[in-house]
Amino acid sequence: MTRLFNDPSAFAEDAKAGFCDAFSSYVVDVPGGVVRRRRTREGKVAVVVGGGSGHYPAFAGIVGPGYADGAVMGNVFTSPSAAEAAAVGRAASGGAGVLLTTGNYAGDVLNFGLAVERLEAEGIPARYVAVTDDVASKGQGADGRRRGIAGDVPVFKCASAAAEEGMSLDDVERVALKTNERTRTLGVAFSGCTLPGADGPLFTVPEGRMSVGLGIHGEAGIDEVDMPTAAELARTLVDGVLGDVPEGLDVRGARVTALLNGLGNTKYEELFVVWNDVARLLRERGLEVVEPEVGELVTSLDMAGCSLTLTWLDEELERLWGAPADTPAYRKGRLVEAAAGGQDDAAAEGAVRSDDEAAADAEAPPLSTGPADEGSRAAAAAVVDALAAVADAMATAEDELGRIDAVAGDGDHGRGMVRGSAAARDAARTAADGGAGAGTVLQAAGDEWAARAGGTSGVLWGELLGAMAKRVGDEAAPDGATVAAGVRAGYDRLGELGGAKPGDKTMLDALGPFCDTLDAGVGSGERLRDAWAAAAERAVQAADATKDLTPKVGRARPLAERSKGTPDAGATSLGMVARVVAGVLAGR
Amino acid sequence: MTRLFNDPSAFAEDAKAGFCDAFSSYVVDVPGGVVRRRRTREGKVAVVVGGGSGHYPAFAGIVGPGYADGAVMGNVFTSPSAAEAAAVGRAASGGAGVLLTTGNYAGDVLNFGLAVERLEAEGIPARYVAVTDDVASKGQGADGRRRGIAGDVPVFKCASAAAEEGMSLDDVERVALKTNERTRTLGVAFSGCTLPGADGPLFTVPEGRMSVGLGIHGEAGIDEVDMPTAAELARTLVDGVLGDVPEGLDVRGARVTALLNGLGNTKYEELFVVWNDVARLLRERGLEVVEPEVGELVTSLDMAGCSLTLTWLDEELERLWGAPADTPAYRKGRLVEAAAGGQDDAAAEGAVRSDDEAAADAEAPPLSTGPADEGSRAAAAAVVDALAAVADAMATAEDELGRIDAVAGDGDHGRGMVRGSAAARDAARTAADGGAGAGTVLQAAGDEWAARAGGTSGVLWGELLGAMAKRVGDEAAPDGATVAAGVRAGYDRLGELGGAKPGDKTMLDALGPFCDTLDAGVGSGERLRDAWAAAAERAVQAADATKDLTPKVGRARPLAERSKGTPDAGATSLGMVARVVAGVLAGR
Repeated sequence: MTRLFNDPSAFAEDAKAGFCDAFSSYVVDVPGGVVRRRRTREGKVAVVVGGGSGHYPAFAGIVGPGYADGAVMGNVFTSPSAAEAAAVGRAASGGAGVLLTTGNYAGDVLNFGLAVERLEAEGIPARYVAVTDDVASKGQGADGRRRGIAGDVPVFKCASAAAEEGMSLDDVERVALKTNERTRTLGVAFSGCTLPGADGPLFTVPEGRMSVGLGIHGEAGIDEVDMPTAAELARTLVDGVLGDVPEGLDVRGARVTALLNGLGNTKYEELFVVWNDVARLLRERGLEVVEPEVGELVTSLDMAGCSLTLTWLDEELERLWGAPADTPAYRKGRLVEAAAGGQDDAAAEGAVRSDDEAAADAEAPPLSTGPADEGSRAAAAAVVDALAAVADAMATAEDELGRIDAVAGDGDHGRGMVRGSAAARDAARTAADGGAGAGTVLQAAGDEWAARAGGTSGVLWGELLGAMAKRVGDEAAPDGATVAAGVRAGYDRLGELGGAKPGDKTMLDALGPFCDTLDAGVGSGERLRDAWAAAAERAVQAADATKDLTPKVGRARPLAERSKGTPDAGATSLGMVARVVAGVLAGR
Repeated sequence: MTRLFNDPSAFAEDAKAGFCDAFSSYVVDVPGGVVRRRRTREGKVAVVVGGGSGHYPAFAGIVGPGYADGAVMGNVFTSPSAAEAAAVGRAASGGAGVLLTTGNYAGDVLNFGLAVERLEAEGIPARYVAVTDDVASKGQGADGRRRGIAGDVPVFKCASAAAEEGMSLDDVERVALKTNERTRTLGVAFSGCTLPGADGPLFTVPEGRMSVGLGIHGEAGIDEVDMPTAAELARTLVDGVLGDVPEGLDVRGARVTALLNGLGNTKYEELFVVWNDVARLLRERGLEVVEPEVGELVTSLDMAGCSLTLTWLDEELERLWGAPADTPAYRKGRLVEAAAGGQDDAAAEGAVRSDDEAAADAEAPPLSTGPADEGSRAAAAAVVDALAAVADAMATAEDELGRIDAVAGDGDHGRGMVRGSAAARDAARTAADGGAGAGTVLQAAGDEWAARAGGTSGVLWGELLGAMAKRVGDEAAPDGATVAAGVRAGYDRLGELGGAKPGDKTMLDALGPFCDTLDAGVGSGERLRDAWAAAAERAVQAADATKDLTPKVGRARPLAERSKGTPDAGATSLGMVARVVAGVLAGR
């Protein structure tokens, strides 16, 4: 919902004032709207866009070189008056005529049509073009034609670029009409938007449902269906738009531009997920997609939803769509000055690279390991067995660890331990099967644990195994003292990395007592399996005791209070792992 | 909430694939993130930014010339792994070193710190800088320092521009640290965001309340207060940020850049309303604001909220902040090619104009009216009286008209009639006081009605009065036939403009019978007051009868069904106006 305003009835005026302040190098405030800060050059046709407010970046956000010369700004979702449209047209005029253009809505058609009459009466040649791209509103528009929604963008852009090229008013109008004829949009919505100061949204969509064929003012859709997956939505949008190919044009082999437009509350990453499927489907149908746009182009306050627009390009429209533009919210074209010191692009930026070349650039240098000692290879097999048992145990404990972590964290600790330990097991097995020694196997396991688990616990387990790997090496079967020294090295490394101290309620509070007990046992001549078993029990006790501690490190969450009485998830899982490994050692 | 995904656990991967497809001219996909399509030029320091996903445009959206060389992309709100950070650093490296930089979070600090170690071990000089701009999290960061939120933007931008200028790794790191030291942010939130596939939001804010000091991952705030107005919020943000001026720097006379950042569900127009107040307050405190940004820069999925960031500039930082950049989501700098045909800017775009010059450009040519006839001036006084009575009547009827309109429209008809008639009355009075005749007074009234009422009814009333004005003129006191012809001309004009026909359930369905009765009465020699009174009663009846009609024109709304049994609001108000005017005529 729209929450921020002073006087709701002055919302559009206040927004305009703030916009003009923030972008004063681009635009200047005139009665009824904005025009470019620089006067339209003499002899250039002016393109003036507009409609109600609430659609930013449409329409004031696209005023600038290469795009609109002015924007008429009405109240939220309300057409501006004819006087306002005429005033902006007058201020934008460069003497070669003015093209006024809006989406096809009764109020806009009326007021902009009147503005054309007024400008003509004053000797300023003027035309009006209404955009009618919405395939869902066939026969429902102001004059029996369709509504205009995100198709405004290609129509306004191509007409503006035509004007920038120096075309006559006749030709700029022709380009606008041609772009409109070749543009189709279908929109969907998941929730409505709320006008500033209103008690409720303009419309609602039931939870778990999607309205198909929505406009940009909260108009009802033509159908309501269950909420789809991203791939299903992509198919609905592509099928809908391609169900109405402009007369005389083809699908297979056609060059189109595509806009996947977010209406305000459907965010960028979601749009990229949908785009991934839309792009695939369009290619499958044989379309070539040229310079698409994925983002928020024509919004409807904070409405949840999106729309797909296709414009069938010809040579002229492809040139105009690709032409540079420089406005507050939309910029296109290469920035020459981005080249350092004015050198040419290639020298300043380096050569273009392919996907394969980039992947090669990212590759780590190979680990160089010598041939492994036989004893070390036997130890490697034990490491694989231990990791396999750990992975099984973590799969069983996932929910319990998640619950513990959710008390004061984000509840993903169980998931991370499952992913990490399974990946470590697989990497260890692969390395051992290839003849690696215990050190290399531990290193491979640690690297994969860190890479697959993500988050903080993943990297800590990766470093713990990595530190052990360095001590253990591939040269000989490790004795108890080496193993104990390896775990201790891991403990030291974790303290160094995470900045945590004993008592901070982290996994170190279980690992420290584990190391102490293991060192003592091994130092007094116990067998590794016995010393490890004692250390594991000590770690489990210590993990349980963390419930009386208060966390000192971590994200800024209200952890301290909430975690009282619950043990640390990382210490708990460490105790579990130690105990499982003890079982494996005892069984060998 | 986040609604669009296929497999929720693959959300970040799918989003990355879609992003790379849509922006393939800028970026190339590498394991763990993206790098620029063009290789980093030899000898240029590479700047690699990153962190979890869910913050677009941060961080992949800012990869390109003038900004980042690469972005490491973790899962939603989860740090990428050290291996991923190292891979992106490796792919971005141009041989002169890599600066890795993220917001200050435990996982990021750990993983990017490890990546530095790995790159250094491979012979690639590397550094890491954590951004710590959040004034609300003092002492709560990973290492006792603050979190990084939208302050990422100036730190990443200035460091990247320094690298683009050819600075050494030492200097790029110095610039990043200096920018961070001079940057402060305070954020607020109104509602939490929902992770893809999750059942509920990460946190909630009670209806009508605002959480102060929010981060960008749904961390709890430091305070909760009642929902403020935009102006009150501006004060909270400005006071909060200026409550912690960086050591050694001043407020009065300082040059700063400012970022008003939307977190996802707080939209552009709302941000502009708040910016209007923020900019005023900053100027009142004596700060000079340089190249501010207002928009979505670092989001948190669809969280509702915003933040204010200030960076105290010095000469170096002002140059770097203003340097051009060209990335998928952030572009800065003038586009030279925007000039048509490669001409220089001034010739291609026309001269810069001041606010006053632009307002003068927008001004309509003055109405040239001759001196008015005395009889016409007397009639003008009657027009003023009639409009005054109409304005009073509309104020009384506002709620009733709103209720009727709300059945099938957006409920603003009463409000529009009140605004329009009051403005018309005032304009008429001013014109009449200046000695204008009835025609000029009617024209002035119509123009103001249309300008102030907005929407469709405003322009129709404006044109109705305007058409009457043309017939009535200023040359003589109008007789009954002239008045009747004027109203008839208005009726014709409205049909021509709106495209409506009798029976379409519009104000024409009352105005048509009114004209017929008035024509007949005047034609048969009745006095104007008597003919008008009869016509008014006929109009009221006809308006009531529209409840049996079905609308044919208008926005694509489910009007037809809903409006059954309710009269048309425009016809109803026309009947009311006709009756009120009849009363005034009778009293004269």
